[in-house]
Amino acid sequence: MFVTALAEAAGRIQACLEDALADRADQKVVHAMRYAVEGGKRLRGFLVMEGARLHGVGPETSVHAAAAVEALHAYSLVHDDLPCMDDDALRRGRPTVHVKWDQATAVLAGDALQSLAFELLTREALGPAGRRLALVSGLARAAGAEGMVLGQALDIAAETAAEPLTLDEITALQAGKTGALIRWSAEAGALLAGADPAPLGRYAAALGLAFQIADDILDVEGDAGKAGKRLNKDAAAGKATFVSLLGLEGARARAKALVEEAEAALQPYGAEADILQHCARFVIARDM
Amino acid sequence: MFVTALAEAAGRIQACLEDALADRADQKVVHAMRYAVEGGKRLRGFLVMEGARLHGVGPETSVHAAAAVEALHAYSLVHDDLPCMDDDALRRGRPTVHVKWDQATAVLAGDALQSLAFELLTREALGPAGRRLALVSGLARAAGAEGMVLGQALDIAAETAAEPLTLDEITALQAGKTGALIRWSAEAGALLAGADPAPLGRYAAALGLAFQIADDILDVEGDAGKAGKRLNKDAAAGKATFVSLLGLEGARARAKALVEEAEAALQPYGAEADILQHCARFVIARDM
Repeated sequence: MFVTALAEAAGRIQACLEDALADRADQKVVHAMRYAVEGGKRLRGFLVMEGARLHGVGPETSVHAAAAVEALHAYSLVHDDLPCMDDDALRRGRPTVHVKWDQATAVLAGDALQSLAFELLTREALGPAGRRLALVSGLARAAGAEGMVLGQALDIAAETAAEPLTLDEITALQAGKTGALIRWSAEAGALLAGADPAPLGRYAAALGLAFQIADDILDVEGDAGKAGKRLNKDAAAGKATFVSLLGLEGARARAKALVEEAEAALQPYGAEADILQHCARFVIARDM
Repeated sequence: MFVTALAEAAGRIQACLEDALADRADQKVVHAMRYAVEGGKRLRGFLVMEGARLHGVGPETSVHAAAAVEALHAYSLVHDDLPCMDDDALRRGRPTVHVKWDQATAVLAGDALQSLAFELLTREALGPAGRRLALVSGLARAAGAEGMVLGQALDIAAETAAEPLTLDEITALQAGKTGALIRWSAEAGALLAGADPAPLGRYAAALGLAFQIADDILDVEGDAGKAGKRLNKDAAAGKATFVSLLGLEGARARAKALVEEAEAALQPYGAEADILQHCARFVIARDM
């Protein structure tokens, strides 16, 4: 049920992004943008579309906001993979953008994908101007130096810090690095309907942290072939992770408690929120 | 008169940017953002504020849009200066961001400055939601893979092309690389007032090209100390410029004709547009 909804959302999002990037200049930077937005789980875009559906907003409307957050997420991955950042050669089972093309193309493709994200949020199909503007404002904050970029900067600083991060510090880091965008995604559907985003915000805060803990567990236990990226790199770099701080069993227990917290936040929506309930459980059980 | 107006706009824009970056995390990436938005001519921000004034929109309103385009311009300079792009160590007479800090900080500071630009455009002080949204949409297009990023990509591609660019190709390149943002800046004031942006758009198209030709002339004739950046690098790299294609006298004549075109576009505004007239003449006479 969740898997079907995720796949359906992914298909719509991919079509929307391909359409947005059609008829562009025949340049490396445009080819790299198309490549960078292909594949991925589309978890963020799915959250947008499912949160919208819960509020009576259909996919033909919400897909533009879902595509926007996936374009923004894709930009962050392209830049994170750069040699001066995480220096990764593999992403989603394929060469990263700077490996397939070059670093300049990766910087520029990421930059243009961020612009594209904001352009998509201005589309008339998303409804009244005030609501679109709330999405733009929220995404700009979630992406910037008080959200995702701050989290990434803290992550890089942690690599050269004298002491490993504490649990509070790593929680704050992840709230920025992955949490801010996941939260925006979950709240976007409510904003599109002019509804209160607070329940979905609580859901997303717990989900985002559970997702990161699951990622740390996968980093230790996973299969690089299935994950489509290099694994075990945090432990190899001597960086603190939820697993190093809580132990494998402790991390699993914390993720489970967070999933219960996420599920509790969905109570106001009743059975309508079943797919989001499944999503929360799936995130910590994933083998993807 | 133009110089006074430019200095006054620059002061207001700097204060707005400092305010936007106050009370942020004490992190390298935030320090680098503050550093990157210091100084510069503020030509783009000035065009926003002067275009707004022509339409009866005051500086306390327009300064937020002016600060947005200067944040976006600052991001583009930080990324352009990276080793994998233009590899410049000096900007505005000071070390570039990746030299003063490191490349990861430069990538992240640029990324967050782009987010900040869009965040600034959502501020309520800018007026009705529909007008703010038109600014967001226009800036996203001007910055992205059909505007500034495309121009930069074409510029990089030209470095390894078998043949030097033709005059048409270099004109198209500059329309993206510097022209799109200058045009957005000039049109923003009309959009803020809900007025027709076409006259200011024609003014900016001519001004932007004149500006770039003047830059190429300065690159050959200028004083690196005054310019605050490395000069003569295009000629050294064997790249076509307006000077290499038209000759020094031909380039001067073309810039002069463009300034006359820019001045003609301002006719509908009469004497009210005197400062923008001065601006156009100043751009090709500059020694800054």
